[in-house]
Formats: sequence, C-alpha cells, structure tokens
Amino acid sequence: MKRPSDQTLNQPLGGNQMPRFGGIASMMRLPVHEDAKGLDACFVGVPLDIGTSNRSGARFAPRSIRAESCLLRPYNMATGAAPFDSLQVADIGDVAINTFDLKKSIDIIESAYNDILSHGCIPLTLGGDHTVTYPILKAIKAKYGPVALVHIDAHADINDDMFGERIAHGTPFRRAHEEGLLDSSAVFQIGLRGTGYSPDDFNWSRSQGWTIVQAEECWGQSLKPLMREIRKQIGNRPIYLSFDIDGLDPAFAPGTGTPEIGGLTIWQGLEIIRGCSGLNLVGGDVVEVSPPYDSSGNTSLVAANLLYEMLCVLPGVQSK
Amino acid sequence: MKRPSDQTLNQPLGGNQMPRFGGIASMMRLPVHEDAKGLDACFVGVPLDIGTSNRSGARFAPRSIRAESCLLRPYNMATGAAPFDSLQVADIGDVAINTFDLKKSIDIIESAYNDILSHGCIPLTLGGDHTVTYPILKAIKAKYGPVALVHIDAHADINDDMFGERIAHGTPFRRAHEEGLLDSSAVFQIGLRGTGYSPDDFNWSRSQGWTIVQAEECWGQSLKPLMREIRKQIGNRPIYLSFDIDGLDPAFAPGTGTPEIGGLTIWQGLEIIRGCSGLNLVGGDVVEVSPPYDSSGNTSLVAANLLYEMLCVLPGVQSK
Amino acid sequence: MKRPSDQTLNQPLGGNQMPRFGGIASMMRLPVHEDAKGLDACFVGVPLDIGTSNRSGARFAPRSIRAESCLLRPYNMATGAAPFDSLQVADIGDVAINTFDLKKSIDIIESAYNDILSHGCIPLTLGGDHTVTYPILKAIKAKYGPVALVHIDAHADINDDMFGERIAHGTPFRRAHEEGLLDSSAVFQIGLRGTGYSPDDFNWSRSQGWTIVQAEECWGQSLKPLMREIRKQIGNRPIYLSFDIDGLDPAFAPGTGTPEIGGLTIWQGLEIIRGCSGLNLVGGDVVEVSPPYDSSGNTSLVAANLLYEMLCVLPGVQSK
Amino acid sequence: MKRPSDQTLNQPLGGNQMPRFGGIASMMRLPVHEDAKGLDACFVGVPLDIGTSNRSGARFAPRSIRAESCLLRPYNMATGAAPFDSLQVADIGDVAINTFDLKKSIDIIESAYNDILSHGCIPLTLGGDHTVTYPILKAIKAKYGPVALVHIDAHADINDDMFGERIAHGTPFRRAHEEGLLDSSAVFQIGLRGTGYSPDDFNWSRSQGWTIVQAEECWGQSLKPLMREIRKQIGNRPIYLSFDIDGLDPAFAPGTGTPEIGGLTIWQGLEIIRGCSGLNLVGGDVVEVSPPYDSSGNTSLVAANLLYEMLCVLPGVQSK
Amino acid sequence: MKRPSDQTLNQPLGGNQMPRFGGIASMMRLPVHEDAKGLDACFVGVPLDIGTSNRSGARFAPRSIRAESCLLRPYNMATGAAPFDSLQVADIGDVAINTFDLKKSIDIIESAYNDILSHGCIPLTLGGDHTVTYPILKAIKAKYGPVALVHIDAHADINDDMFGERIAHGTPFRRAHEEGLLDSSAVFQIGLRGTGYSPDDFNWSRSQGWTIVQAEECWGQSLKPLMREIRKQIGNRPIYLSFDIDGLDPAFAPGTGTPEIGGLTIWQGLEIIRGCSGLNLVGGDVVEVSPPYDSSGNTSLVAANLLYEMLCVLPGVQSK
Amino acid sequence: MKRPSDQTLNQPLGGNQMPRFGGIASMMRLPVHEDAKGLDACFVGVPLDIGTSNRSGARFAPRSIRAESCLLRPYNMATGAAPFDSLQVADIGDVAINTFDLKKSIDIIESAYNDILSHGCIPLTLGGDHTVTYPILKAIKAKYGPVALVHIDAHADINDDMFGERIAHGTPFRRAHEEGLLDSSAVFQIGLRGTGYSPDDFNWSRSQGWTIVQAEECWGQSLKPLMREIRKQIGNRPIYLSFDIDGLDPAFAPGTGTPEIGGLTIWQGLEIIRGCSGLNLVGGDVVEVSPPYDSSGNTSLVAANLLYEMLCVLPGVQSK
Repeated sequence: MKRPSDQTLNQPLGGNQMPRFGGIASMMRLPVHEDAKGLDACFVGVPLDIGTSNRSGARFAPRSIRAESCLLRPYNMATGAAPFDSLQVADIGDVAINTFDLKKSIDIIESAYNDILSHGCIPLTLGGDHTVTYPILKAIKAKYGPVALVHIDAHADINDDMFGERIAHGTPFRRAHEEGLLDSSAVFQIGLRGTGYSPDDFNWSRSQGWTIVQAEECWGQSLKPLMREIRKQIGNRPIYLSFDIDGLDPAFAPGTGTPEIGGLTIWQGLEIIRGCSGLNLVGGDVVEVSPPYDSSGNTSLVAANLLYEMLCVLPGVQSK
Repeated sequence: MKRPSDQTLNQPLGGNQMPRFGGIASMMRLPVHEDAKGLDACFVGVPLDIGTSNRSGARFAPRSIRAESCLLRPYNMATGAAPFDSLQVADIGDVAINTFDLKKSIDIIESAYNDILSHGCIPLTLGGDHTVTYPILKAIKAKYGPVALVHIDAHADINDDMFGERIAHGTPFRRAHEEGLLDSSAVFQIGLRGTGYSPDDFNWSRSQGWTIVQAEECWGQSLKPLMREIRKQIGNRPIYLSFDIDGLDPAFAPGTGTPEIGGLTIWQGLEIIRGCSGLNLVGGDVVEVSPPYDSSGNTSLVAANLLYEMLCVLPGVQSK
Repeated sequence: MKRPSDQTLNQPLGGNQMPRFGGIASMMRLPVHEDAKGLDACFVGVPLDIGTSNRSGARFAPRSIRAESCLLRPYNMATGAAPFDSLQVADIGDVAINTFDLKKSIDIIESAYNDILSHGCIPLTLGGDHTVTYPILKAIKAKYGPVALVHIDAHADINDDMFGERIAHGTPFRRAHEEGLLDSSAVFQIGLRGTGYSPDDFNWSRSQGWTIVQAEECWGQSLKPLMREIRKQIGNRPIYLSFDIDGLDPAFAPGTGTPEIGGLTIWQGLEIIRGCSGLNLVGGDVVEVSPPYDSSGNTSLVAANLLYEMLCVLPGVQSK
Repeated sequence: MKRPSDQTLNQPLGGNQMPRFGGIASMMRLPVHEDAKGLDACFVGVPLDIGTSNRSGARFAPRSIRAESCLLRPYNMATGAAPFDSLQVADIGDVAINTFDLKKSIDIIESAYNDILSHGCIPLTLGGDHTVTYPILKAIKAKYGPVALVHIDAHADINDDMFGERIAHGTPFRRAHEEGLLDSSAVFQIGLRGTGYSPDDFNWSRSQGWTIVQAEECWGQSLKPLMREIRKQIGNRPIYLSFDIDGLDPAFAPGTGTPEIGGLTIWQGLEIIRGCSGLNLVGGDVVEVSPPYDSSGNTSLVAANLLYEMLCVLPGVQSK
Repeated sequence: MKRPSDQTLNQPLGGNQMPRFGGIASMMRLPVHEDAKGLDACFVGVPLDIGTSNRSGARFAPRSIRAESCLLRPYNMATGAAPFDSLQVADIGDVAINTFDLKKSIDIIESAYNDILSHGCIPLTLGGDHTVTYPILKAIKAKYGPVALVHIDAHADINDDMFGERIAHGTPFRRAHEEGLLDSSAVFQIGLRGTGYSPDDFNWSRSQGWTIVQAEECWGQSLKPLMREIRKQIGNRPIYLSFDIDGLDPAFAPGTGTPEIGGLTIWQGLEIIRGCSGLNLVGGDVVEVSPPYDSSGNTSLVAANLLYEMLCVLPGVQSK
Repeated sequence: MKRPSDQTLNQPLGGNQMPRFGGIASMMRLPVHEDAKGLDACFVGVPLDIGTSNRSGARFAPRSIRAESCLLRPYNMATGAAPFDSLQVADIGDVAINTFDLKKSIDIIESAYNDILSHGCIPLTLGGDHTVTYPILKAIKAKYGPVALVHIDAHADINDDMFGERIAHGTPFRRAHEEGLLDSSAVFQIGLRGTGYSPDDFNWSRSQGWTIVQAEECWGQSLKPLMREIRKQIGNRPIYLSFDIDGLDPAFAPGTGTPEIGGLTIWQGLEIIRGCSGLNLVGGDVVEVSPPYDSSGNTSLVAANLLYEMLCVLPGVQSK
C-alpha cells in the first residue's frame, strides 16, 4: 500500500496535548472516521450482549474499553512495534446493532464488516459478546475464503444450539464450521476449561481436526513454544484472532459474563498475541468484557491493551 | 374460595427459625411451589432483560429481589394488613424465558401466565424489564377481559416501535391498547417525565382517554387525593398494577436501566399502592430493577417491599 | 464547669493546616485522649456488630465515620453553634469489645461508660449496632437515674427476644424498660415503620406510655412542631438521644444493615436533633451504619454530621 | 440570529439509529466540533480536579457525564422546550488544562473561553471542580461586563484563601468579586449549609449585597416563588448560572467531593434552572461531580440532565 | 451403595431448561431436600460469621455461593468426573445457627452434622467463617473416629484463644486436636503465611507432627508432587478437606475477611482438590468467603467451583 | 544505637487487646508520634496526588493503607523477622502538603524529610503518587550523598517533562539524576513495561548506566537470582527502595492510577523486598495506591504488607 508521506498517519492524542482523562473517548483517542475508507486497520465496536447466557453488560464494553484505552501510548515497549508509524488507523465507531433482535443483528454486523473489508481495512473489534464473531467470520470468508483461527477462550463455543437457538454466544464456531468459514486444519482453541454439558464437549472440536489446548495444559508454562508450533501450522494462511476475555483467569479479567476459574494468565495472553507476529492476520476481536462487573475498569483496560497488541502484530507494522 | 383451615396457610420463614441471611432465598422465604395450583396469590419471576434499550441487568432482578426480600416480616405495620393470615401464597419460581429471542419469550410468558391464571391465582411479578407486562396483560385479558391499569413509570412506554421493533420495553402499553387489553377509560400513568423523541410523546396516551399524571404535578404533594379519585374512577373493574421502579426518583431506586431525574418519592410510591386497597386487583408487577447498578442491594429491597405492599392490598386480605 | 482559659480547648485539625484527606483519622481530627478525664464531651466508638440480625459490617462504622468526619469544620452554619468554643472535646478511641461473645461485650461496654461518666463527660457514641445502647443506658442510669429518651429508628427494638436470645440489636429498649433505665413518661420513638412479626409490635411501646410517631405520620411534615411538643414533655429531665441511621430513608442512608423503605428525610433527622437544643442531654449515639454497603462513604458522612449536630445541642454550647 | 434553514441544525444521535449504549460518547451524542464557530451554544468539558480540597475524581466528570448523557432525548417533556429545533449546538470537547499546575490552568481556561465567546456561542460547561468557574467568569466579563449570578451550592466558595492559596475550589467567587466580574446587586447563592471555619462565613457574601438562601430556608418548599423574585431582580442583565452538584442533597447526587447533608432536592434543582427561563443566560456550568464516588453513574446522569435543562432555558429556545 | 436406577439421580437444572440467571438459587440449581436422607452427598450452608476477627460478611456466603454456582454445568471438563451420574446429591439448605451466640452455634452445627452423617451422606459445606469446621469435625469424629486433614489456609488457625475466647475462627484446629478429632500423623496445612503473634506460630502445628507447607514453598511450583506424597501418607484413612478461601492469594479470591498476600494460585488450589482423588473423603468445606468485599461475585464463584471439584473427587464418582 | 531496655519499644496494638476493626487507625495501630525523635524507623504518609496524569485518588492512600494495616501482626512468619523487638518504630502521621500547588509541595516534603532524617530515623513512606519520591531523595542525598536505588515500577518515570512541567509523577528519577541524587552505577528499575511515547523510552535509563529489568524478563521467573546479583552490585552503599504499586500486575494491585498489564506477581514483589535483606536501606516508599479504584481494600492491604516487609529488612532487625 502506498501512502504519500508518513505525516499523514493518524496518531493517538498524546498526554502532553490533552490530559489522559480529557477529550472525547475514542479508542486510544484516535480520530473518529465515518467508515473504513483509506484505513489500513480500524477499531470498531459491536455493542451487542443479547447473545449472553449468564451475566449481561457487554453492550457497554466498547464504550468502556475506549475510555480505559486513553491511557495507552503509541509505542510497544516490549516488542518495539510502532503501529502508528506504519499504518493508517482510526476508530470508526460502533455497528448499529438491533438490540431487540439477535438474528437481525447478525445480518447487520455481517453487512457492516462487508463494508469495512471492502476498503481493504483490517477490523479489530471491540465486542460485544462472542456471538459477534460469527457474522464477522462470514464477512471475512466472503473476502478471504476460509481462514485459520486462533481462539482464546474458556469455552469452545461450539454448541449446536442454546435453549433451542442456533444463534447465541455459545454457538459461533459451530455455525462457522457448518458454513465453511474456517480452515479446519488450522483452528486452535486455547484455554478451554471448566464444566460442561457433556464430558466430550471439547471432542466435537477435536473431531473436526481442530487443535484444543485445555487450560490445564498451559498451567505454569510459557506459551511461546505453543505459538511457534501454531505459526508453523498456519503458515501464510489468512488468520483471524478471537480473544474471549474469559480465556484469562478471572484474577486478571474479573469483569466478564461467564467467568471460569483456572484460566490463562495475562502473560500467556500476551504471549499468544505477540506470538502471532509474522502471520497474515486479517482481523481480530476481544469479546465478553462486561463493565458492570468490573469495578476498577481494569478488565476494560486489559481488553484495550489486547486490542492494541493485535494492532502491533498486523502485517506491515514495523518495529523500532 | 374455601380452605380447610387457617393453619395450612404458607408462612414466610421467620428470623427466629433461621437467621435472615440464611436459607434458600425464595421470595420472603416462602415455600416454593411448582405451579400456582391451590394458591390465592403467587410471586413469580420473569428474568428477561433483552427488551431493554439502555442498561441491561434486569435479568438478575428476580434473584436479587428474592435475596433482599428475606428481611421482610409478615405483618404490615402501617396498614395492619395480614396477608399470610388471609391468603395462600407461594413463590412459584421463574418463567423460563428464551433469553436469545425476545419475540418467542413473549409467547412463553403469555402461556405461563395463562397457566397461573387458570388456577385462580393472582400473579405478582418480579420483572424483568417492562416488556414482560405486555404478555402478562394478554393473559389477563383472556381471563378478565380488558382491565383498568395503574401504571407508575418515568416513561409512558407507548412507542409504536423501537429501532423498528414492535416488541421492546418501550412499547408494551401501545401493544396492549392495540389488542384491546386495557379499558381506556380507566388507565392511569403516574410519574411520567424526562426527555422525549417528540414534544407530544405523552399526548398519545391522553388521546386514548388515559389519565396522565406527570411527575411535576406530584412534586411536593401527597398522592392520597389522587388515589381517591382513581379509586372512584376504577370502581369495581378488574385492575392491573404495573410499577416500573424508575417511576421513583433515582435517589430512592438507583439500580435501574433508564433512570430519569425528578421522579416520585418512595412515600408517594407507597401511597399509590396502598391507595389501591379496596380495588379489584387481578395482578401486579415491579419491573426494571437492574442489580448490577445497585451496589447496596437497596433497590431490590425497595422492589421486594413494593411487591409485598401489593400483596397487602389484594382482595380478601384482612387487617388486624 | 470552670476552665482555666478558652485557649486550652481542643480544636479539630483544620483544612488549612493539613489537607482534609491527610492526618490520622480521629473524629473530626480532634486530639485523641486516653480517657474522658477533663473532657466535657467525648466521641467514643463501639465497634460491635455481632448483635445484628441481617447484614453485618457495623464493626467498621467507627473507623469509617471518623474517616468521613474529616470533612467537618468547627462551626454550625445553620444554628451558629460553636461547640469547640464552649466545650473540651476529644476522641477517646474505641471500647475494646469482645467480638466473639455478645453478652460479655455488654459488660465491657457498661464498664467503659461507667468510667466515661465518672469524669462528668458526655459520651457521643459511634456505633456499632443498636445492641450497644443497652449497656450505655445502664451506665447512664447508674449516674443519672432513669432518663428520657428520644429514639429515631425504623424499628422499635423492643422484642422480648430474638432467636431465643435476650441480648441482640432488636431488644435494647425492652431490656432498658425492664431494668428501669427509662422514664416511661418521656420516651419517644420516631420513624417506626415497615413489616413486623405481629400487627401490634409497636403497641407494646404504647402500652408502656411511650409516644410512638410512625414514619407515615411524618411524611411530608416538618418535625419542628413535634419537637416543640417533645421538649415540653421532657422539660429538664436528663435525656438520652439514640439515632439509628435506619430511621432515615435508605435514600439518605443506604449503608445500613436492616433498611426499611419509607423513612424519615435527612431534613427531618436534622430537625429532630436541632430540636433537642435546650434539653438536658446526657448522651447520644448514632448506630447501625454498615460501611460495606455504603460505596460512596456518604452514610458514614451522614453519621458524622449527626454526631456533630448532637455535640452542637449539648448543654453549655454557645452560639455565635 | 439568522440561519439558512432548520434542517442544518445538529441533532443528538437517536436511539433508533444507534442503541443508546453504542457510538462515540459525546454529550447527548451530538456531533463533535473543533471549536465554537457557528454554534449558538456548546457543551465543553474542563477536566480539572486539582483545585479540590477533599475527594478528587472530578477530572473524569466530563467523560462520565458524556457517557450517561447518551440516555437523553431531544425534547423536554416537562416544559416543551425544543432546543435542537432552535439552536445550533455541538460538543466541542475538553479544554486541555495543565493537570500539574493549577494557576497555569486558570489562564488556559480563560483563554479557551475567550475563544468560545468570540464566536457568539454560549458555553455550557461540564466541570471539573468549582475552580473552573473563576476563569470562565473572567472571559464572560471580558465579553459581557459584570454579570448576574445564580449559584447553587452547599458552600459559598468565597474563602479568601485555602492553605494560603488564592486559587482553589473554595475561592472562585471571592476572586470574581475582587476582579469585578459580578454585579453584586444580582448575585444569588442558594443551598448553602453545613459546617464552617467561622460562624459568619456566609456573611461575607451578604456584606457584598448578595442574596443568600441557606438550605434550611428551602426545606419543604417549592422554589418557584424564589425564582420569580430572582427573575424580577435580575431583569435583563446578562446572567451566569453555576450549579455545584453538591448543592443537591447527597441522596440525589452521591458522587461528589465535598458532600454536605441536608441539601436541596432534585425537584428544587430543576425548579431553579427552569425558573431561569426568560433570563438572558450567557453561560452555565455543572461542577464537582466525582465519578469514582458514584457507583451507579447516576450522579453523572443528574449532571447531564441539569446541563440539558440549562440548554432548554437559553435565550431563543422555543417550546412546542 | 445400591440405588434403584440411574435415572432417579438429581441433576442440576440446565441452562437449556431455564436461563442460568433464572430459577431459585440453590447450589448448582439442584433440588432442595429437607434433610440428607437418601443422599450420597449434600451441599449444606452454615451462614455464621460471628467467629471472625476482622471483616465480617461471611454470613452471606452460602447465599452468594449458591447464586454464582448457577453457572456450573454437570461435567468436569478437566478430569472427566461425572458426579451427577454417580451420586445422589442435593442442596439441603442452611443450618439455623444462632447468630447472637457463638458457643450455642457450635452445638447447633454439631447436632446438624450428626444428623447429616446419620444418613450416610457426605457433607460439602458452604461456610461461614472457619469456626464452623470445629463442630463439623466433632460430628465427623463421632462417626468416623479421628480423621486425616488436608487444610488449605493462610493461617494455621491453631490459636489457643482469641481475646480470651476458646471458640473463634482462629482456634478450630487447636480445639480439634485437643479433642482428638484429628489423626496427627496425617494433618497437612498448606499455604500458611503472613504475619504472626509469635515467630513460632506455625511450630505448634509442627510439634504435633503435622505437616506444614508454607506458601513460600509453593511459589512457582506445581503441587502435584506434594499431593502425590500426601495421598501416600494418608492412604485409606478417612480424610476431611477444609479449604479456607484465603489460602488463595487475594488476586484470585479478593472477597474474604482476613486476606494475606503471597498466597496460593487458583491452579494450585485446583491441583490440591483434584489431587485428593482416590482418597476416602468424608467431608469438605469452603469457608471465609465474604461477599460484601467481592464486588464482581467472582470469589463466590471460585468457592462454588471448589465445592464442585470436591464433589468430583468423592469416593464413587466415576469419570467419562 | 543504644536503648535503655527492650520493653520501651513500641508495639502494634494487638488483636487480643482491641479487635482489629477497632481503635484509631494508625499504621499497624502503632503509637502516633509527633515527629521522628527517638525513632529508628517511622511510617509517614504523603497524601499527594496532584502529580498524577491519569486516575487521581492516591491522596487517600495513607489513610486507607493505615486502615488495612490493622490486620498485620508483629512477626514475619516467612523470614522470622522481629522488627518490633529490634527497632523503635512509630507512625508520625502525614506531611501537610499543599494540595493546590505541586511545586510548593515538593519543598514541603523535602523539608519534612530533612527533619525526619535529622533524627537518624529511617522513613518508610505511604504515598501519594510517585512525585513524592523526588523530594524524599533530595533529603536523602543531603544526609547520605547519592544513593543506590531499587525501583519497582511499570514505568521508568524518567520523562524530561509532562505537559511541559518538570515536576510530575512521571519525572522524579530524571530530576533525581540531574541533581546527583542517585549513584548511577547502582540503580535498578524492575518491572518496566507497557506502551511508551518513544520506542527508546527505557534507553535513557540504560544510557545512564542503570540496570533495566523489563517485566517480560521476569515472567515465570523467581527473582531471587536477580536480587542476589543486585545485592552484590550494591554492596554496602546506602540504598533507597521505591515500590510503585503498579509494578505489580493489576491482578494483584487493581487500585492504582496508571495500571499496566503484564506486570510482576506479588510473589516477585515479596522476593524483591526480602531480597534487600542485608543491604544498607536508608528509606523506602510504596506509592500510587488509589483507594477509589480498590473496592475490596486489598490493594491498600498489599501496600501495608510491602511497607511492613521493608521494615523487616531494615538494618538492625533481628530474626527469631
């Protein structure tokens, strides 16, 4: 992608121009664009929580993640990534979902992402509950074909239905599989754990050829070796990265709707995202933050950071 | 209704039998029945919040109202009402709504209330958002015909649609009117206020012949005279009482989804319910409590009390 | 009472000497004395909450009331009272109650107040739950004989027993009556309301000749006329003032253990205390603040103010 | 003021276009403008809290007020005011105060308001602590000369200094007086109360000829007669309206830094602002909201409403 | 143990029958039984917190643990355990402790557990503070003789007395030892740490032959080897498992009364319980959860999970 | 240092003399002294938060840390340290900073610490934001010359300025370096991470010869080897220990103003402080606790513990 000159790249509003607690709370206080035109990557919110089966509240996650993101500065001190020196990025606001009808919202979201993708822009999504990943993957498929998936979560989200419904936050990857949105040879579910409806809940995933890494396998481990292996298996396939905040242990991300104990650490979470560096990322999301259960705001801050880290590993981002 | 003997009437579990913080948290720690059979009145929860347009969380209201209700003792010290000396009452649990499909939930709720009413039982509902009143009124109509309505609320809830949808928490009384569920000569909306989409939002109600009492008319007033007038107008019609907790000022009921400043006082709220004594109440609800926004639990406690006060004015309740 | 010279009177540490959020958090940031020797009045804490029947937490009330009291300045802008120009006042810390044995704590408290009173000092107590008033009244009786009582509360606290126990936060005034601690011709219980175990719960009080002012009688009224009448009836009897924070409506004092809706306003609460001006006050308390249910700290602030207002109406306090 | 055509007026983003919990959280979800050019009125934030003497946190008030304001609809159902049919209004973001130097921030704010006023725009300010009113009044004076003032507050804010400093949240109106920013014959301070450093704290105001209405004078009263009198006295002078949220009783506005019990009701607060209708308002502010002490968000919601009500009484706003 | 047929085993109410936020909040939404008759294992609450020396609030733990347990599904995805396919389990409600008298409560609890054990049922206890383990162990001894103990805690709880009292939450295992309730050759205290009254606080335990594993020994370690050793030492003795939630670091379990930093991880906590598989567990408890200090509810969720994990390692539970 | 006899050493008020929730909340409930005279070490608060760039609230940290410290007992069960058997320690209250002028506060603090140090007393500081370390180091330099530094933090705090200001919580160590307060050959910054204004933010430190240990280097590691190396490099230099609570991951210390994910564990934090045993510590601080963002109080408890652990490694403290 050619660009006239670096100085035209959007920059987050800095703390020396406006105190971090001031200003309109866009993601990282980036400029707000009306659509994805001209952008390499965008932050976009999907304030949907009517797909949740336990605690609601994720509808406020995009607003809350934006508010907490105001603490973020442009450079990644761990990896040296300089995303705003490399890419044109903006916050394009939220998808106007229909909060009274989950099924209609699926179509609204798919359509919105078709538009984003039509501009050659990589969407980084502020969910919303995990239902939102299904229509996003539909749009991704339309553009890129079936994609590889790195999915961090406590739950496999591959139920055939919930309460008889095929669309809910526990079904997106079952639907995605059925519709051929995923490249089953390169699907990785990391952090699965907890209790289930059937002792072989996770085996459905395995039977599709997906790789399941239960949380217990991660306990006390660096995930760098795992990510090395995953990178090798994915190769240059287009890959989507879906990070359910409940993949982390509730100690690190208390504000979520269906918390499960015994989860991943934040260090492992960072290793996973940073371990995607070099892959052909075509989109990513952080979902299931529920601000009403996050009295300090720190879960939203974690989400803001994870989204920033995703930005840092997008193709074309240079390090300094 | 004949009953073998008084000693068979359910009683709330007392604080001298089990500390108030102990025991299974049913409404007032009453026995839990499977259905409404043999009951004069029941407490029933409808944990639905996918009809809300702003803050969610009302799905947890039935559970939270039950928990806080454990502080309630059997006798009404203000009015002398002795409901558990007069009526057979139980908690019949919650309606198993479909949290992923609002429209289907309407049918589920209507059907559940048809069953309750078939037993000659008066339902007192722990909402849920205000959408739930619509299917309840449908069942009420099937049994009693069009009913009088006393509706306490900040909002008229008579939108024709919200985001294009006809079913949502801002539309129940429009739908009720269209379907002939209400006796328009005896509909009273009390506490309306705030901001609107159109300066004549409340005039639709007026144009149906309904009586609108805006909050401003109530400021600094006892509502006993109003209730006297309302009782006169309603006479012996069957009447339904719907109390949206946001009818109260947020000082008294902070934990709600669409709070509006300048509302009714708790004293006025009690005057309204107590002012329904002598009427032919056929059902009542308290809706829109949102526990995640109620850090002390006191909004749920208010709701528990209001439901208890409704019980105290049911036909057949004697005072001591 | 003679004092060498005014300049020896303790003064609250001012905001121009130390920011209000700084310094050791004694009551009003007054000097901490080891005992009541040489004091006209003292603030003293009784961190007991094992007499509570519902929510606990009042054990932290003295600490929390002290912390919030740091906002208070020395002069009463409404009444002109200048207590620190008139009296020697200090914070004498907390009574070392036995938190594992309620009955032993009664003796510990009584003994501690005997000591306070032996110095001719008027105790203003930071409760603790309402059980603490019983041993305080025992000590008061030993010094002054039976006293008049102004008791603000949602509950009459005259149960004969709770769970079979004679000592608990619902029994202090029954015990006090039995032991002749009160002058029954001058006992006033204001703000009673809510639900009860028996429709005549409040009639026991009435049958002792006490004056009961139920909350409903207060709704929408100034309490100045009531206090005028009370002052007349009490005359120059020694009088004790016991203010259960749940006498106020939970809108004004959410952080309490057994909240009851429909209570007194803060304006009425202030009218009651200020209406005690001119009486022969020999002690006072504010009880039942429960900090864990008071997310803003404001209930503790209310309590700190009420205790300050009590100080302002002590005999000998001059106005400017 | 001439405008090409009504359809060019900015409108708040409606709930039928985007759910209320979605979208970038500008004030009422109005368009964000870079400056006040072409605007009749603007919402502007001043995220300053280093002038506070007790609890901090007001720095987050503009962000939080904006977030909660998303619930507001365009029309005032009580008064019929239709501000967005009458005026061009936008959110112009925050003033970039220097959070490390209070005195420098004074100059920054004054300069920012000089710019706003240079466009003929009326500023409605989302404070910030009360220090911010001082530089605003300096800019107002430069444009309009000395102005009338309606000041709602628990505190007179006329200290000569705090901790030796002349600039702090307790001194703005002393400074304003010294610099001739106010028309002393038309200054009204309403709601004053609490404790003071000197029994004649409020008399300094009185000695300037200002009208003081202590909170106690308001208890149980409608303030419509007071406002009638105030309107008469102010006449057609330019007037500034400064609403410290702690003028309200903490029951109605718990989230503030120096709460004082016994304050105004929300109904009185609304009567005051609505009572300014017909006056020549040249600016207004709501200050001292402290979100960290406002667990439900409702204090910010109150502030958002009060600012909206100010908008509704600006000169030129028509009713429907 | 013979049972007529598998289909009679109680099952938790599933999320496809009733949304997880709905229904009466029994433990895991299991049926509520009146007593332990016919049960292999039961969940039972002991809502006692008057044995606590610092923060109270554990009285609400059984209610809160039940509420959060509604998220749990029947199968253990990590171990394959299928407890509800193997055992008859129910929630039998709470023990009606005397909240005003700690010593009497000891007897009440002992008696209640004698009854539970008389039915051959294994009690899994929702505490309550740690005092409750003492009377439980008394009942256990009466049935099984002295038992082995695995005790996870920050504190050894072997004080001879607290404030002169022999019954309190810091003394249960001293009392248990004195009364011969424990088999000293098989007592394991894991996670001890923090500050003490004497540098050899933990040596008393050691001098009884107990095994002490201080938290520092666990830092950064898997506890699987420790549990292997413990299993070997315990052999087929009857063993009781007591899990004080403050054994975990406050990062994982913030809502507790006497938190100590530097504790066990949740992963270690799970390794300990799962490491008890194959032992002859005769009872277990999770104590010291204090809901008022747990704003997200997640500490209660941790406790619910730990109790479920205990159920999964009971004798007779099969894996799938 | 000679002392007449051990029995004169101050001791924390024990839980068997006064319940932990009772009594005046000084640090560890130690006696409060007016100044540092006669003390070996003191706890001293600096309630300053106007140097913060994001969330405020640290002004309440000294009060909150004191409140939570009441849980601490005298002996260190991990290390055997018996500080109160070895040193004369007291709480000397707070420095009366000027909360309206940051620069003046710097001088006030420096002067206060000059006084503390003049008594040969080691100050352990309850911050306040990190700005406070700069004036403390100035006083330290005046007494000891340039010192070694162990600095735990997410941020290097070596900005040349913030918003154009040279004094702020992000600049103390830049200023310290410029003024020769530090011995650059023995400066260790541990835990640095997050996002920056420039990819070489941390390299300024490195270019001064300081040792930087980024958080990522610590992940999954015991820090004992690091501390061994640090002890070797520091030798017998005087050393200051500055612990910014945000050095810890927010899971362990949620209540802070500029949280950064991926931080140190509490176990590592303890290893660092305990690893300073044997060094010539001349002062220490724990800064940046922000109580309004710490709903459980546990972050303050962590800080209280860290300060206690610093006390335990002071020169002259003996172990038992």
